Amino acid sequence: MINIAVLGHGVVGSGVVEVIETNQEYIAKNVGDNVYVKRILDLRDFDVPYADKFTKDYADILNDPEISIVVEVMGGINPAYDFSKAALRHQKSVVTSNKELVAAKGAKLLRLAKENNVNYYFEASVGGGIPIIRPLHSCLAANQIDEIAGILNGTSNFILTKMISEQMPFEDALKMAQALGYAEKNPTADVDGHDACRKICILASLAYGKHIYPDSVPTQGIGEITLEDVDYAESNDCVIKLIGRVKKVDEQGHVLCMVSPALLHKQSQLAGISDVFNGILVRGNATGDVVFYGRGAGKLPTASAVVADVIDVAKAKGTTAALTWEDDGVNYVVDYRNTRCDYYIRLSACDTDKQQAVKEIQKQFGEVRYLSRPKQPENELAFVVNDMLERDLLEKEQILSAENIYLVNKIRILNY
Amino acid sequence: MINIAVLGHGVVGSGVVEVIETNQEYIAKNVGDNVYVKRILDLRDFDVPYADKFTKDYADILNDPEISIVVEVMGGINPAYDFSKAALRHQKSVVTSNKELVAAKGAKLLRLAKENNVNYYFEASVGGGIPIIRPLHSCLAANQIDEIAGILNGTSNFILTKMISEQMPFEDALKMAQALGYAEKNPTADVDGHDACRKICILASLAYGKHIYPDSVPTQGIGEITLEDVDYAESNDCVIKLIGRVKKVDEQGHVLCMVSPALLHKQSQLAGISDVFNGILVRGNATGDVVFYGRGAGKLPTASAVVADVIDVAKAKGTTAALTWEDDGVNYVVDYRNTRCDYYIRLSACDTDKQQAVKEIQKQFGEVRYLSRPKQPENELAFVVNDMLERDLLEKEQILSAENIYLVNKIRILNY
Repeated sequence: MINIAVLGHGVVGSGVVEVIETNQEYIAKNVGDNVYVKRILDLRDFDVPYADKFTKDYADILNDPEISIVVEVMGGINPAYDFSKAALRHQKSVVTSNKELVAAKGAKLLRLAKENNVNYYFEASVGGGIPIIRPLHSCLAANQIDEIAGILNGTSNFILTKMISEQMPFEDALKMAQALGYAEKNPTADVDGHDACRKICILASLAYGKHIYPDSVPTQGIGEITLEDVDYAESNDCVIKLIGRVKKVDEQGHVLCMVSPALLHKQSQLAGISDVFNGILVRGNATGDVVFYGRGAGKLPTASAVVADVIDVAKAKGTTAALTWEDDGVNYVVDYRNTRCDYYIRLSACDTDKQQAVKEIQKQFGEVRYLSRPKQPENELAFVVNDMLERDLLEKEQILSAENIYLVNKIRILNY
Repeated sequence: MINIAVLGHGVVGSGVVEVIETNQEYIAKNVGDNVYVKRILDLRDFDVPYADKFTKDYADILNDPEISIVVEVMGGINPAYDFSKAALRHQKSVVTSNKELVAAKGAKLLRLAKENNVNYYFEASVGGGIPIIRPLHSCLAANQIDEIAGILNGTSNFILTKMISEQMPFEDALKMAQALGYAEKNPTADVDGHDACRKICILASLAYGKHIYPDSVPTQGIGEITLEDVDYAESNDCVIKLIGRVKKVDEQGHVLCMVSPALLHKQSQLAGISDVFNGILVRGNATGDVVFYGRGAGKLPTASAVVADVIDVAKAKGTTAALTWEDDGVNYVVDYRNTRCDYYIRLSACDTDKQQAVKEIQKQFGEVRYLSRPKQPENELAFVVNDMLERDLLEKEQILSAENIYLVNKIRILNY
């Protein structure tokens, strides 16, 4: 009998109990032993058939020698961090869906797990029910990973999908996402890209072996995308998606890592990923592009990823050393302003003559390819410019603004 | 030092040597030891820098106690089967890309590996460079697998893509595939669905634990698909794909398993998988639909999957017992004629009055939804019929044929 404890009886926590209950026989066959939820930690009271499992005192779990695996699905840094450390120090493996904690403290918790000859697993922290952590690590082991790019946040993808396919304005799409339970009352973490940022940090750390901290990663959300941008993208045969990405820059471990909206050509495998679905593209030097697709959130998909980790821990003997990364105090994220990218740019020339504006644009950018949209105002200009040094673009914005030509929006065009 | 031997220096075999060479450092870091190709078995002579590794005598490998892993990338049943058995009996793990052998003898080789406390791994046998065997087994461990469906053959997918996107006739598309090296001179295994059949058998065996033999699986290729069918599919907002699929029927292990062309709605995640790419959809009871996408063949993608297995074997201690299935002599594949499916049906009523034909169709099928295509001949009728018992459809074909209304083609409509 493998006894586990679940910390937090929210959406994911109750899902874990449900998945273990529903698939009991199947799991027992897989593990070669029964997996049993012995205790659940939550400060709230629940009217459920298994109410006798609940405790409000973590010591009941920590000091129970029968409990060998602790499932931390509380979310947030504290007290999850302290609870996880304590469990590892008591030689209990920890399985988590807590992307915030893994992104902030992953290296430390992985080291602590190793020191105590147990495991710290986090498959559910990225991509919900999509298997990505283990395939990235184990199945692509023979590849050098050149690049990873993903639609990592279901809420913002839902909003963008509504904007693209139904011409629904951002605010309405956000309200619908909230009404459907896809977005929180305070949608900042999803809409501003912070959630995607944590996830790309975890993937980057795992792929390149060095802890990439969220606050070192330039992060831009979807709040400034409008239906006008969606229309221009459409005229360029593209859709707009929120993309978290990391790209190997050199052999010393430096990476380009950022979160931003991007125009993707409709033929991209990521372009067709709609609604609340997530998709992650891994570009390996031998395997080429591999894409993983599925529900990136939700009670049962996330819970099933947690339970898959529980099963793996139950079967593992000692630490699985290689599923890890280091924190050597160095920031490996390069300054994106020194890199090059294709761009979609939209300008307003309301306060200047349009012909003059076109001349000025040519002066700054050379030949550009103009885009058009239905109901395009006379003095709105949108175009595509290739292979811009990001730093130059920021400078050109300033120069144009001095000529009364104002940047309304600019979005990277990515090639996945 | 982990010494390996490679059996067969064809496309995949030379790729394995190349991937191990190119990613040497990366692999050593991952395994915690160097991986070295010590011997290569091939009857041909090769002018390569590592010519000294070659042998024509398998005994040189079998009797070398330093070689702990044998990579079998010869293809075909014999002598690959005998060589694999001999390696396992000599306590050497075997890694293979040989789908024909795994589909035919998997259960026996897996049992032999277990008896000798070594491993038999076959990630590269399905989906080339796409990680699918291990994610299916390990990451989805917490799910009961309801269904698996895949575009499993890159050659036939390339041909269908050309037919769909460029209106290229089947014969021309096949010639192009041959010219590009995607199809063999004798394209039967690809075009007639046998290759896809072997792969779905491997996935089915792994997912449900019982050996599913290719000859028990009804298999239909793409040879009868015409541009007319492609047009009718388009008018129904669908594309035609060659789909291998397996579906759980009951708790006793029975499955519906078959390979056939299918109409997929354009919004399906499998519909967008084009050219030589493969995609596999796994439907779990907790995780919902998860899709894996990438290059299903090719030298480096396939070789990288083989090398990933080599790394895993090198890290494993003893047999990884659960990655296995049994052969208890029972045929678990149910008769598809007793199952129900939606259908696209195309009939020719050349030898009868069209109004009479429409009446006859109504008599047989009730209300159907007619489709149309450009340049549709007067006496061609195409329609969609829902939820047909397959056996009834076969019967109705006979009845209509007696009325001089002939079936030209019928293709299942699947819901993925």
